[in-house]
Amino acid sequence: MTVYPEYIENLIKELRSLPGIGPKSAARMAFHILDLPFENAEKLSSAITEMKKRVMFCTQCGGISDGHLCSVCSDESRDRSLICVVEEARDILTIEKCREYSGLYHVLGGTISPLNGIGPDELNIDSFIRRCEKGIAEVIIATNPTIEGDATTLYLARILKSMNIRVMRIARGLPVGSNLEFADSATIARSFAGRINV
Amino acid sequence: MTVYPEYIENLIKELRSLPGIGPKSAARMAFHILDLPFENAEKLSSAITEMKKRVMFCTQCGGISDGHLCSVCSDESRDRSLICVVEEARDILTIEKCREYSGLYHVLGGTISPLNGIGPDELNIDSFIRRCEKGIAEVIIATNPTIEGDATTLYLARILKSMNIRVMRIARGLPVGSNLEFADSATIARSFAGRINV
Repeated sequence: MTVYPEYIENLIKELRSLPGIGPKSAARMAFHILDLPFENAEKLSSAITEMKKRVMFCTQCGGISDGHLCSVCSDESRDRSLICVVEEARDILTIEKCREYSGLYHVLGGTISPLNGIGPDELNIDSFIRRCEKGIAEVIIATNPTIEGDATTLYLARILKSMNIRVMRIARGLPVGSNLEFADSATIARSFAGRINV
Repeated sequence: MTVYPEYIENLIKELRSLPGIGPKSAARMAFHILDLPFENAEKLSSAITEMKKRVMFCTQCGGISDGHLCSVCSDESRDRSLICVVEEARDILTIEKCREYSGLYHVLGGTISPLNGIGPDELNIDSFIRRCEKGIAEVIIATNPTIEGDATTLYLARILKSMNIRVMRIARGLPVGSNLEFADSATIARSFAGRINV
């Protein structure tokens, strides 16, 4: 027996497929939408399909784009001798927000993860190596600080070093504004191993 | 400066208008939708518009319906001498789930709330009184246990008593499975005031 009428139940089912949304949140959202004027519900609905239709991925770096090349790859003022490697396209937006980096990007589309059946061939590594062959001076690897992220970093570093390209990775340590008392041991160990001159 | 591309930013804005969704959850949901196959995103989008187009409100009780009369009002086996008054249409579904009540319903569409400019005329009270004039024996008021819910209960009780209709309201007390230690004083006071024979 379905508790709610068919069309509400169907919307709740679809909303539950979103990350972080359980059955109660989904029902609350569905009833909120039911109370909205039709135009507002229509706006939400078309925002979903419009985004899916309009947002593309850059053919060079794999980042989010609204055309053939993304705004970073087509920006002549960026440092074209520098590539930052990230796992997902959204990571580029996160890095761009901090305005610290002025080079190009490359999206791997994930990390090497043998347990999930993802090897180097499943990632955008070939196209990355081809880009690196065209006069790249330095690669900054910005994968997530996880076991898979580290494995991917080591894999890429081995290839890049054999090509005489400088390979760096972003620092790990205590987050700014955090507290030594509440940090986990692995993070503290990393912050000691990665200590720098003051 | 918008951080994300226009169409993603627009979807995030629309998702943020949903209850309980902040900027980070909205971004997470938007990027999840971006990763979905187009058909799945389309399903979510059309679930919203289909629900808005198909779900109607019962012309008798104001409950959620897919036709002129809802499934409760058109069910001949329900006790037609009994009306349960609720604030919102979704409350009917919540009560139906517990399978304890077999009468009809009436949706007020809110509660009397002078601070928000909502008086009896803004609610579906006239249509309720007209229904009560047609041989109703008992009314059970199931508004939320809030100040506004209580004010509405008292307002309706005064009218119904003058019509010689029995007026009841649902019990307040400790929720089943809860713990006396963690209950608030108002709830405990209500559970003493509403004590019953064992």
